[in-house]
Amino acid sequence: MAPVAPRSGDAIFANIEHVNAELFTLTYGAIVRQLLTDLEEVDEVNKQLDQMGYNIGIRLIDEFLAKSNVSSCVDFRETAEVIAKVGLKMFIGVTASVTNWNAEGTCCSIVLEDNPLVDFVELPDTYQGLHYCNILSGVIRGALDMVSMKAEVTWLRDALRGDDVFELQVKLLKQVPEEYPYKDDE
Amino acid sequence: MAPVAPRSGDAIFANIEHVNAELFTLTYGAIVRQLLTDLEEVDEVNKQLDQMGYNIGIRLIDEFLAKSNVSSCVDFRETAEVIAKVGLKMFIGVTASVTNWNAEGTCCSIVLEDNPLVDFVELPDTYQGLHYCNILSGVIRGALDMVSMKAEVTWLRDALRGDDVFELQVKLLKQVPEEYPYKDDE
Repeated sequence: MAPVAPRSGDAIFANIEHVNAELFTLTYGAIVRQLLTDLEEVDEVNKQLDQMGYNIGIRLIDEFLAKSNVSSCVDFRETAEVIAKVGLKMFIGVTASVTNWNAEGTCCSIVLEDNPLVDFVELPDTYQGLHYCNILSGVIRGALDMVSMKAEVTWLRDALRGDDVFELQVKLLKQVPEEYPYKDDE
Repeated sequence: MAPVAPRSGDAIFANIEHVNAELFTLTYGAIVRQLLTDLEEVDEVNKQLDQMGYNIGIRLIDEFLAKSNVSSCVDFRETAEVIAKVGLKMFIGVTASVTNWNAEGTCCSIVLEDNPLVDFVELPDTYQGLHYCNILSGVIRGALDMVSMKAEVTWLRDALRGDDVFELQVKLLKQVPEEYPYKDDE
Protein backbone atom coordinates (compact mmCIF):
# COMPACT_ATOMS: atom_id res chain seq x y z
CA MET A 1 0.00 0.00 0.00
CA ALA A 2 1.30 3.44 -0.89
CA PRO A 3 2.00 5.77 2.00
CA VAL A 4 -0.98 7.83 3.01
CA ALA A 5 -1.32 11.63 3.06
CA PRO A 6 1.42 13.95 4.35
CA ARG A 7 -0.83 15.32 7.10
CA SER A 8 -2.94 13.13 9.33
CA GLY A 9 -6.67 13.66 9.55
CA ASP A 10 -6.25 14.50 13.23
CA ALA A 11 -3.72 17.24 12.58
CA ILE A 12 -5.88 18.81 9.90
CA PHE A 13 -9.03 18.49 11.98
CA ALA A 14 -7.36 20.42 14.78
CA ASN A 15 -6.59 23.34 12.48
CA ILE A 16 -9.80 24.02 10.65
CA GLU A 17 -13.00 25.77 11.56
CA HIS A 18 -15.68 23.70 13.19
CA VAL A 19 -19.22 23.68 14.33
CA ASN A 20 -20.76 21.59 17.06
CA ALA A 21 -21.47 18.03 15.93
CA GLU A 22 -24.88 17.88 17.55
CA LEU A 23 -25.97 21.03 15.74
CA PHE A 24 -24.88 19.39 12.50
CA THR A 25 -26.68 16.15 13.33
CA LEU A 26 -29.91 17.95 14.16
CA THR A 27 -29.65 20.17 11.09
CA TYR A 28 -29.12 17.15 8.88
CA GLY A 29 -32.08 15.45 10.54
CA ALA A 30 -34.19 18.50 9.70
CA ILE A 31 -33.25 18.14 6.02
CA VAL A 32 -34.20 14.49 5.92
CA ARG A 33 -37.50 15.16 7.66
CA GLN A 34 -38.24 18.01 5.27
CA LEU A 35 -37.54 15.83 2.24
CA LEU A 36 -39.72 13.03 3.57
CA THR A 37 -42.57 15.49 3.99
CA ASP A 38 -42.09 17.16 0.62
CA LEU A 39 -41.23 14.22 -1.60
CA GLU A 40 -43.22 11.48 0.15
CA GLU A 41 -41.51 8.65 -1.76
CA VAL A 42 -38.52 7.20 0.12
CA ASP A 43 -36.73 6.44 -3.16
CA GLU A 44 -37.02 10.08 -4.18
CA VAL A 45 -35.62 11.15 -0.83
CA ASN A 46 -32.67 8.79 -1.30
CA LYS A 47 -32.04 10.27 -4.73
CA GLN A 48 -32.29 13.84 -3.49
CA LEU A 49 -29.94 13.26 -0.54
CA ASP A 50 -27.44 11.69 -2.89
CA GLN A 51 -27.68 14.66 -5.25
CA MET A 52 -27.28 17.15 -2.39
CA GLY A 53 -24.23 15.20 -1.26
CA TYR A 54 -22.81 15.21 -4.77
CA ASN A 55 -23.18 19.00 -5.00
CA ILE A 56 -21.45 19.36 -1.65
CA GLY A 57 -18.67 16.91 -2.58
CA ILE A 58 -17.69 18.74 -5.74
CA ARG A 59 -17.09 21.86 -3.62
CA LEU A 60 -15.68 20.23 -0.50
CA ILE A 61 -12.86 18.64 -2.50
CA ASP A 62 -11.30 22.11 -2.83
CA GLU A 63 -11.16 22.54 0.94
CA PHE A 64 -9.83 19.03 1.25
CA LEU A 65 -6.99 19.53 -1.24
CA ALA A 66 -6.16 22.96 0.16
CA LYS A 67 -5.99 21.88 3.79
CA SER A 68 -4.75 18.31 3.64
CA ASN A 69 -1.58 18.69 1.53
CA VAL A 70 -2.65 15.50 -0.19
CA SER A 71 -1.35 15.55 -3.73
CA SER A 72 -2.36 13.12 -6.47
CA CYS A 73 -2.93 9.63 -5.22
CA VAL A 74 -1.04 7.01 -7.19
CA ASP A 75 -4.05 4.77 -7.58
CA PHE A 76 -7.58 4.06 -6.45
CA ARG A 77 -6.31 2.02 -3.50
CA GLU A 78 -4.48 5.00 -2.10
CA THR A 79 -7.48 7.24 -2.82
CA ALA A 80 -9.78 4.98 -0.81
CA GLU A 81 -7.36 5.02 2.12
CA VAL A 82 -7.16 8.81 2.00
CA ILE A 83 -10.95 9.10 2.04
CA ALA A 84 -11.23 6.75 5.00
CA LYS A 85 -8.31 8.02 7.07
CA VAL A 86 -8.01 11.69 6.17
CA GLY A 87 -11.20 12.88 4.48
CA LEU A 88 -13.75 11.45 6.90
CA LYS A 89 -11.65 12.56 9.86
CA MET A 90 -11.29 16.05 8.48
CA PHE A 91 -14.98 16.55 7.79
CA ILE A 92 -16.94 14.51 10.29
CA GLY A 93 -14.31 13.66 12.86
CA VAL A 94 -14.30 9.87 12.45
CA THR A 95 -12.05 7.41 10.68
CA ALA A 96 -13.06 4.30 8.80
CA SER A 97 -11.39 1.14 7.61
CA VAL A 98 -11.01 -0.01 4.02
CA THR A 99 -11.67 -3.67 3.28
CA ASN A 100 -13.04 -6.17 0.77
CA TRP A 101 -10.86 -5.17 -2.16
CA ASN A 102 -11.54 -6.97 -5.40
CA ALA A 103 -8.55 -8.46 -7.24
CA GLU A 104 -8.36 -5.58 -9.73
CA GLY A 105 -8.17 -2.93 -7.01
CA THR A 106 -11.24 -1.15 -8.40
CA CYS A 107 -13.80 -1.92 -5.71
CA CYS A 108 -13.65 -1.82 -1.93
CA SER A 109 -15.68 -1.20 1.18
CA ILE A 110 -15.30 1.73 3.55
CA VAL A 111 -16.52 0.65 6.97
CA LEU A 112 -17.58 3.21 9.59
CA GLU A 113 -18.22 2.12 13.14
CA ASP A 114 -19.02 5.60 14.26
CA ASN A 115 -21.15 8.07 12.33
CA PRO A 116 -22.18 11.44 13.76
CA LEU A 117 -24.99 11.78 11.20
CA VAL A 118 -27.09 9.21 13.00
CA ASP A 119 -26.72 10.16 16.66
CA PHE A 120 -30.16 9.87 18.28
CA VAL A 121 -31.74 8.71 15.01
CA GLU A 122 -34.16 5.81 14.83
CA LEU A 123 -35.95 4.90 11.64
CA PRO A 124 -39.64 4.12 11.95
CA ASP A 125 -40.71 0.94 10.16
CA THR A 126 -42.35 2.93 7.38
CA TYR A 127 -38.99 4.34 6.36
CA GLN A 128 -37.00 1.13 6.25
CA GLY A 129 -36.12 1.80 2.61
CA LEU A 130 -34.52 5.12 3.50
CA HIS A 131 -30.77 5.48 3.09
CA TYR A 132 -30.57 8.06 5.83
CA CYS A 133 -26.87 8.78 5.23
CA ASN A 134 -27.12 9.03 1.46
CA ILE A 135 -25.69 12.52 1.59
CA LEU A 136 -22.38 10.94 2.61
CA SER A 137 -22.22 8.56 -0.35
CA GLY A 138 -23.10 11.51 -2.58
CA VAL A 139 -20.27 13.62 -1.11
CA ILE A 140 -17.75 10.86 -1.81
CA ARG A 141 -19.05 10.37 -5.35
CA GLY A 142 -18.89 14.13 -6.00
CA ALA A 143 -15.41 14.52 -4.56
CA LEU A 144 -14.10 11.55 -6.58
CA ASP A 145 -15.65 12.98 -9.72
CA MET A 146 -13.61 16.15 -9.25
CA VAL A 147 -10.37 14.17 -9.19
CA SER A 148 -11.31 12.37 -12.38
CA MET A 149 -12.65 9.17 -10.85
CA LYS A 150 -16.16 8.22 -11.80
CA ALA A 151 -17.43 5.98 -9.04
CA GLU A 152 -20.54 4.24 -7.84
CA VAL A 153 -21.06 4.47 -4.09
CA THR A 154 -23.59 2.13 -2.47
CA TRP A 155 -24.59 1.30 1.10
CA LEU A 156 -24.05 -2.41 1.83
CA ARG A 157 -24.63 -2.23 5.58
CA ASP A 158 -26.48 0.38 7.60
CA ALA A 159 -26.59 0.48 11.39
CA LEU A 160 -29.98 2.22 11.21
CA ARG A 161 -31.33 -0.89 9.53
CA GLY A 162 -29.96 -3.22 12.19
CA ASP A 163 -26.46 -3.89 10.86
CA ASP A 164 -23.54 -3.56 13.25
CA VAL A 165 -21.69 -0.95 11.16
CA PHE A 166 -22.04 1.29 8.14
CA GLU A 167 -20.45 -0.16 5.02
CA LEU A 168 -20.12 1.84 1.83
CA GLN A 169 -19.08 0.04 -1.33
CA VAL A 170 -17.03 2.28 -3.59
CA LYS A 171 -16.67 0.97 -7.12
CA LEU A 172 -14.41 2.77 -9.59
CA LEU A 173 -16.22 2.86 -12.94
CA LYS A 174 -13.80 4.89 -14.99
CA GLN A 175 -10.66 6.86 -14.35
CA VAL A 176 -10.37 9.73 -16.78
CA PRO A 177 -6.89 11.06 -17.52
CA GLU A 178 -5.71 13.70 -15.04
CA GLU A 179 -7.70 16.89 -15.37
CA TYR A 180 -8.62 19.22 -12.60
CA PRO A 181 -11.98 20.79 -13.26
CA TYR A 182 -11.76 22.36 -9.79
CA LYS A 183 -8.96 24.56 -11.11
CA ASP A 184 -11.11 26.01 -13.89
CA ASP A 185 -11.85 29.22 -12.10
CA GLU A 186 -8.37 30.01 -10.89
CA MET B 1 -24.23 42.85 34.74
CA ALA B 2 -24.21 39.51 36.47
CA PRO B 3 -21.10 37.38 35.95
CA VAL B 4 -21.37 35.22 32.91
CA ALA B 5 -21.23 31.43 32.73
CA PRO B 6 -18.77 29.37 34.76
CA ARG B 7 -17.13 27.98 31.63
CA SER B 8 -16.12 30.12 28.68
CA GLY B 9 -17.44 29.35 25.22
CA ASP B 10 -13.87 28.68 24.08
CA ALA B 11 -13.23 26.12 26.77
CA ILE B 12 -16.45 24.29 26.01
CA PHE B 13 -15.92 24.49 22.28
CA ALA B 14 -12.55 22.79 22.70
CA ASN B 15 -14.11 19.84 24.49
CA ILE B 16 -17.06 18.85 22.39
CA GLU B 17 -17.45 16.91 19.17
CA HIS B 18 -17.24 18.87 15.97
CA VAL B 19 -17.66 18.69 12.28
CA ASN B 20 -15.98 20.81 9.65
CA ALA B 21 -17.56 24.24 9.33
CA GLU B 22 -17.51 24.23 5.54
CA LEU B 23 -19.40 20.93 5.46
CA PHE B 24 -22.00 22.49 7.73
CA THR B 25 -22.20 25.64 5.62
CA LEU B 26 -22.68 23.68 2.41
CA THR B 27 -25.20 21.35 4.03
CA TYR B 28 -27.20 24.29 5.32
CA GLY B 29 -27.02 25.86 1.85
CA ALA B 30 -28.47 22.63 0.44
CA ILE B 31 -31.44 22.90 2.81
CA VAL B 32 -32.17 26.47 1.83
CA ARG B 33 -31.92 25.66 -1.86
CA GLN B 34 -34.20 22.66 -1.41
CA LEU B 35 -36.81 24.74 0.42
CA LEU B 36 -36.69 27.46 -2.24
CA THR B 37 -37.33 24.82 -4.89
CA ASP B 38 -40.09 23.05 -2.98
CA LEU B 39 -41.94 25.93 -1.38
CA GLU B 40 -41.36 28.61 -4.02
CA GLU B 41 -42.57 31.47 -1.80
CA VAL B 42 -39.71 33.19 0.04
CA ASP B 43 -41.98 33.92 3.02
CA GLU B 44 -42.79 30.24 3.33
CA VAL B 45 -39.08 29.41 3.25
CA ASN B 46 -38.43 31.96 6.02
CA LYS B 47 -41.18 30.36 8.09
CA GLN B 48 -39.93 26.84 7.49
CA LEU B 49 -36.32 27.71 8.36
CA ASP B 50 -37.51 29.35 11.57
CA GLN B 51 -39.55 26.27 12.45
CA MET B 52 -36.62 23.93 11.73
CA GLY B 53 -34.45 26.12 13.92
CA TYR B 54 -37.04 26.07 16.69
CA ASN B 55 -37.15 22.27 16.61
CA ILE B 56 -33.36 22.16 16.79
CA GLY B 57 -33.21 24.75 19.58
CA ILE B 58 -35.55 22.87 21.88
CA ARG B 59 -33.17 19.91 21.67
CA LEU B 60 -29.86 21.75 21.57
CA ILE B 61 -30.59 23.45 24.89
CA ASP B 62 -30.03 20.08 26.59
CA GLU B 63 -26.53 19.83 25.16
CA PHE B 64 -25.91 23.42 26.09
CA LEU B 65 -26.95 23.02 29.72
CA ALA B 66 -25.11 19.71 30.05
CA LYS B 67 -21.81 20.96 28.63
CA SER B 68 -21.66 24.59 29.69
CA ASN B 69 -22.24 24.32 33.44
CA VAL B 70 -24.45 27.35 33.06
CA SER B 71 -27.12 27.25 35.73
CA SER B 72 -30.18 29.47 35.86
CA CYS B 73 -29.50 32.98 34.66
CA VAL B 74 -30.69 35.63 37.08
CA ASP B 75 -32.44 37.67 34.42
CA PHE B 76 -32.94 38.16 30.71
CA ARG B 77 -29.87 40.41 30.54
CA GLU B 78 -27.65 37.62 31.71
CA THR B 79 -29.40 35.17 29.41
CA ALA B 80 -28.69 37.33 26.38
CA GLU B 81 -25.01 37.58 27.34
CA VAL B 82 -24.80 33.81 27.74
CA ILE B 83 -26.33 33.27 24.29
CA ALA B 84 -23.90 35.72 22.69
CA LYS B 85 -20.72 34.75 24.51
CA VAL B 86 -21.18 31.06 25.34
CA GLY B 87 -23.97 29.59 23.21
CA LEU B 88 -22.93 30.93 19.82
CA LYS B 89 -19.30 30.11 20.52
CA MET B 90 -20.17 26.58 21.58
CA PHE B 91 -22.30 25.80 18.55
CA ILE B 92 -20.98 27.80 15.62
CA GLY B 93 -17.60 28.94 16.90
CA VAL B 94 -18.24 32.70 16.91
CA THR B 95 -19.06 35.24 19.59
CA ALA B 96 -21.38 38.19 19.33
CA SER B 97 -21.97 41.42 21.21
CA VAL B 98 -25.16 42.42 23.01
CA THR B 99 -26.35 46.00 22.56
CA ASN B 100 -29.37 48.29 22.26
CA TRP B 101 -31.03 47.32 25.52
CA ASN B 102 -34.38 48.93 26.20
CA ALA B 103 -34.91 50.52 29.60
CA GLU B 104 -36.91 47.57 30.94
CA GLY B 105 -34.18 45.06 30.09
CA THR B 106 -36.60 43.03 27.98
CA CYS B 107 -35.28 43.72 24.48
CA CYS B 108 -31.78 43.80 23.03
CA SER B 109 -29.77 43.17 19.92
CA ILE B 110 -27.26 40.38 19.39
CA VAL B 111 -24.75 41.51 16.80
CA LEU B 112 -22.65 39.00 14.85
CA GLU B 113 -19.78 40.20 12.73
CA ASP B 114 -18.87 36.71 11.69
CA ASN B 115 -21.34 34.04 10.66
CA PRO B 116 -20.25 30.67 9.28
CA LEU B 117 -23.72 30.02 7.83
CA VAL B 118 -23.15 32.52 5.05
CA ASP B 119 -19.60 31.75 3.90
CA PHE B 120 -19.60 31.86 0.07
CA VAL B 121 -23.29 32.78 -0.02
CA GLU B 122 -24.64 35.50 -2.27
CA LEU B 123 -28.35 36.15 -2.58
CA PRO B 124 -29.65 36.69 -6.08
CA ASP B 125 -31.95 39.72 -6.44
CA THR B 126 -35.02 37.50 -6.68
CA TYR B 127 -34.44 36.27 -3.13
CA GLN B 128 -33.92 39.61 -1.41
CA GLY B 129 -36.82 38.84 0.94
CA LEU B 130 -35.13 35.69 2.16
CA HIS B 131 -33.90 35.56 5.75
CA TYR B 132 -31.17 33.11 4.89
CA CYS B 133 -30.11 32.62 8.51
CA ASN B 134 -33.60 32.21 9.89
CA ILE B 135 -32.66 28.83 11.28
CA LEU B 136 -30.47 30.67 13.79
CA SER B 137 -33.22 32.93 15.08
CA GLY B 138 -35.42 29.82 15.35
CA VAL B 139 -32.77 27.99 17.37
CA ILE B 140 -32.53 30.88 19.84
CA ARG B 141 -36.31 31.12 20.11
CA GLY B 142 -36.60 27.37 20.71
CA ALA B 143 -33.81 27.28 23.28
CA LEU B 144 -35.29 30.24 25.19
CA ASP B 145 -38.68 28.57 25.16
CA MET B 146 -37.20 25.59 26.95
CA VAL B 147 -35.91 27.79 29.77
CA SER B 148 -39.32 29.38 30.18
CA MET B 149 -38.69 32.54 28.19
CA LYS B 150 -41.11 33.21 25.35
CA ALA B 151 -39.28 35.47 22.95
CA GLU B 152 -39.61 37.02 19.54
CA VAL B 153 -36.42 36.93 17.50
CA THR B 154 -36.16 39.16 14.42
CA TRP B 155 -33.40 40.09 11.98
CA LEU B 156 -32.75 43.84 12.00
CA ARG B 157 -29.60 43.78 9.90
CA ASP B 158 -28.36 41.14 7.50
CA ALA B 159 -24.96 41.19 5.80
CA LEU B 160 -26.43 39.21 2.89
CA ARG B 161 -28.72 42.17 2.23
CA GLY B 162 -25.90 44.68 2.24
CA ASP B 163 -25.67 45.53 5.96
CA ASP B 164 -22.27 45.50 7.61
CA VAL B 165 -23.20 42.94 10.28
CA PHE B 166 -25.95 40.56 11.33
CA GLU B 167 -28.20 41.96 14.03
CA LEU B 168 -30.82 39.87 15.77
CA GLN B 169 -33.37 41.58 17.94
CA VAL B 170 -34.43 39.41 20.86
CA LYS B 171 -37.56 40.58 22.62
CA LEU B 172 -38.73 38.85 25.78
CA LEU B 173 -42.51 38.49 25.56
CA LYS B 174 -43.20 36.52 28.68
CA GLN B 175 -41.18 34.83 31.35
CA VAL B 176 -43.04 31.87 32.78
CA PRO B 177 -42.18 30.77 36.30
CA GLU B 178 -39.25 28.35 36.43
CA GLU B 179 -40.16 25.03 34.90
CA TYR B 180 -37.83 22.76 33.03
CA PRO B 181 -39.71 20.91 30.32
CA TYR B 182 -36.34 19.58 29.13
CA LYS B 183 -36.16 17.52 32.29
CA ASP B 184 -39.46 15.75 31.59
CA ASP B 185 -37.89 12.58 30.29
CA GLU B 186 -35.25 12.14 32.96
